[in-house]
Amino acid sequence: MRVTVWNENRHEKKNPEVAKIYPNGIHGAIASFLEEKGFEASTATLDEPEHGLTDEVLEKTDVLVWWGHLAHDEVSDQIVEKVHERVLKGMGLVVLHSGHFSKIFKKLMGTSCDLKWREADEKERLWVVDPSHPIAEGVDQFIELEKEEMYGEHFDIPTPDQLVFVSWFEGGEVFRSGCTYQRGNGKIFYFRPGHESYPTYHHPDIQKVIANGVKFVQPVKRDYPIYGNAQPLETISNKPE
Amino acid sequence: MRVTVWNENRHEKKNPEVAKIYPNGIHGAIASFLEEKGFEASTATLDEPEHGLTDEVLEKTDVLVWWGHLAHDEVSDQIVEKVHERVLKGMGLVVLHSGHFSKIFKKLMGTSCDLKWREADEKERLWVVDPSHPIAEGVDQFIELEKEEMYGEHFDIPTPDQLVFVSWFEGGEVFRSGCTYQRGNGKIFYFRPGHESYPTYHHPDIQKVIANGVKFVQPVKRDYPIYGNAQPLETISNKPE
Amino acid sequence: MRVTVWNENRHEKKNPEVAKIYPNGIHGAIASFLEEKGFEASTATLDEPEHGLTDEVLEKTDVLVWWGHLAHDEVSDQIVEKVHERVLKGMGLVVLHSGHFSKIFKKLMGTSCDLKWREADEKERLWVVDPSHPIAEGVDQFIELEKEEMYGEHFDIPTPDQLVFVSWFEGGEVFRSGCTYQRGNGKIFYFRPGHESYPTYHHPDIQKVIANGVKFVQPVKRDYPIYGNAQPLETISNKPE
Amino acid sequence: MRVTVWNENRHEKKNPEVAKIYPNGIHGAIASFLEEKGFEASTATLDEPEHGLTDEVLEKTDVLVWWGHLAHDEVSDQIVEKVHERVLKGMGLVVLHSGHFSKIFKKLMGTSCDLKWREADEKERLWVVDPSHPIAEGVDQFIELEKEEMYGEHFDIPTPDQLVFVSWFEGGEVFRSGCTYQRGNGKIFYFRPGHESYPTYHHPDIQKVIANGVKFVQPVKRDYPIYGNAQPLETISNKPE
Repeated sequence: MRVTVWNENRHEKKNPEVAKIYPNGIHGAIASFLEEKGFEASTATLDEPEHGLTDEVLEKTDVLVWWGHLAHDEVSDQIVEKVHERVLKGMGLVVLHSGHFSKIFKKLMGTSCDLKWREADEKERLWVVDPSHPIAEGVDQFIELEKEEMYGEHFDIPTPDQLVFVSWFEGGEVFRSGCTYQRGNGKIFYFRPGHESYPTYHHPDIQKVIANGVKFVQPVKRDYPIYGNAQPLETISNKPE
Repeated sequence: MRVTVWNENRHEKKNPEVAKIYPNGIHGAIASFLEEKGFEASTATLDEPEHGLTDEVLEKTDVLVWWGHLAHDEVSDQIVEKVHERVLKGMGLVVLHSGHFSKIFKKLMGTSCDLKWREADEKERLWVVDPSHPIAEGVDQFIELEKEEMYGEHFDIPTPDQLVFVSWFEGGEVFRSGCTYQRGNGKIFYFRPGHESYPTYHHPDIQKVIANGVKFVQPVKRDYPIYGNAQPLETISNKPE
Repeated sequence: MRVTVWNENRHEKKNPEVAKIYPNGIHGAIASFLEEKGFEASTATLDEPEHGLTDEVLEKTDVLVWWGHLAHDEVSDQIVEKVHERVLKGMGLVVLHSGHFSKIFKKLMGTSCDLKWREADEKERLWVVDPSHPIAEGVDQFIELEKEEMYGEHFDIPTPDQLVFVSWFEGGEVFRSGCTYQRGNGKIFYFRPGHESYPTYHHPDIQKVIANGVKFVQPVKRDYPIYGNAQPLETISNKPE
Repeated sequence: MRVTVWNENRHEKKNPEVAKIYPNGIHGAIASFLEEKGFEASTATLDEPEHGLTDEVLEKTDVLVWWGHLAHDEVSDQIVEKVHERVLKGMGLVVLHSGHFSKIFKKLMGTSCDLKWREADEKERLWVVDPSHPIAEGVDQFIELEKEEMYGEHFDIPTPDQLVFVSWFEGGEVFRSGCTYQRGNGKIFYFRPGHESYPTYHHPDIQKVIANGVKFVQPVKRDYPIYGNAQPLETISNKPE
């Protein structure tokens, strides 16, 4: 399975604190642990030509992982269209943290994708609410992150097809943290944690969940459905006038 | 709409603290605010003959509200069968708090309905996660209860058809607190709050949600589906051998 | 409840056969039976200024009914944006038949909304698959339409929150014909039947379902959620460094 | 993965026509193609001691496939309890055709599981309504069975977590033919086709779907959740009175 990890890669360039946590960028960190877990992973970033998402790259991508925050508006609408079409055709998509506000996620959801947030070094607990789900494989009752940015409800997303994690935050909020969706032939997994100023993507359980998510959204091998004008059963086409 | 509020009514008899909070029983308190809100409400309790749920009572009940805790096992299997059949035929069911372990709820869910719990006077916040849902009508972003028993995930229920509330608890847990289900012609609403030692059912927002829930699960006026051996379209029955 | 019935109103102008079936337009026919059923209904059409959907009209609309087919592209993006925002803020939306390809429905769904189709005067049976749903109130086991356009799977929509009807067609296809969705504070009901060359909207059961649908998607009375930077519980804000 | 294929194996003994189609029983046919597809498959039947489902067998079964029809009532309640507990603990369950009326399926669903039926050698088309689902992998737009028993809506099951197939029948009915459910740590797949008098389980696409289903419901490797009285976060347990 070929995974492309996309990152806007701006915090890493602007903020030395972030660069210290993710010396190879958030994309580099994610691609690296995915490689370790046996996936074929490469990266793409905003400032590359076509944001690194050329037709060639998209065509050979089975699963696209997306992290963005500061520069959602700089992502070209044309690339968003292409990614959207690829998802409907079967490419898996894993959207992380502030990617909730990316053009591609909003386009696939049809909602504002807005939420509450707070940067206050709060403890987060991601509780497993569907223990039968393959994305929760190998995860204990909950994942505890000592410090994270808070995201709180209401999270303006369509009702998830499957809800895997619900987060608890010290300051009094909850959040639907792990959600799956089906769109056309494609599957989407949204996973909340991963603020740039915390070492969240170095946490072994977070890595496990992202790897499980990548596996879960992998494309199903089948033709794209046929749409448009359709022939009836012969019994109908032969019916007397 | 005729509502029957069922309560095992044992804590109220055994524990003066509970009797002080609910002098007319939990059933009395709930029936009373439902009456105030315009429903025709009556009550039934465990120690009445047939637990107060005679054929006559069940037949004229549009929505049954259920509270039980200490004495789930004392509810007769025969009555549970009758209530189950009435739900499939269209009667609405609102299950409150420790009713999660009642025979009727477990039978309708098909799971253990187990959960975590703790009695520690914790703050609870019930967050609205589906603001489009009629059960959340008139409710602010969340309902805050100063002190309640904690119920925590994993809550062993089938994936809810609709998830309306998620609770946050001071001690670190979350809980799917407001869940709806469809079973046959009937609808079910499970609502978490209401430990007997707190005045939860006197809280105006809790009363509002229970009233909304009663309205939501009211029976749809239609015939019960026809099952069994079925006739085909005439075009098929006339087809030449 | 104030309902606005929107129609592109082109078939009626171009095709005398359609005008004969719907002398006051499809919008006129729908508004008329909704009025009879007690709703306050008005109409709006494509060729009116702002397509008849001025800010004033949208603001006082509780539920918008949408029929379009030939001229989806002529609907201005700006109006679509406004309708989209109104839905997220709570306005109900009922999308009929070929409205599956309207800009507003595709934007809310996030998918292509493509399907199979055939104009062959086929019998359609809309089977009720959720007898507990208020949209199916008063409807028999199925609704039979002697002749309709066929719409067949795969229908490229997100998994419906609730599936109420599944259609059977003479020529061998099935279709998810009655689907509900939640988006923000708003609710959506898609209902398949209603090709312009058949008197479908004069059928009493179809009228009943559309009226039920309008009632179902009516706005819930509550404030729009608060998004953005949020304050924590005082226990957190006071915690010692 | 170890699969146990359970069959009541009565039609095969009583009816030479069925025995001709399935000389090794329906269980034998299914186990055989699963073996060919790389699963470790064994069989169990009603008339064996403990119906072939001893504690030892159940413990080592990852996925149980269930076919029953004539003798649901002869299945011991004690065995049903054990299978139920195993499903909640994570064992996958694939229920086939008339298994909809088995004690174990009804117990897991909480409904009557009733439906319409007709034996009239009708054509069935199973349409894929979720092309992103792994159970539909390798399947064309639909599977066509020349002759099958008809099952029609309303099918009295809880709303499926995922709906993969919808059947079309010549005589005018539709049916939710491929449904998945989550119960505790376990997953369930119900798949409609397979009347004993037709060679349905020799059809390559049906075999593909059953194999996909077995893979889909395989247990997730994780501990069973902890239920009961729970400790709070230390911040709570230390809070001043």
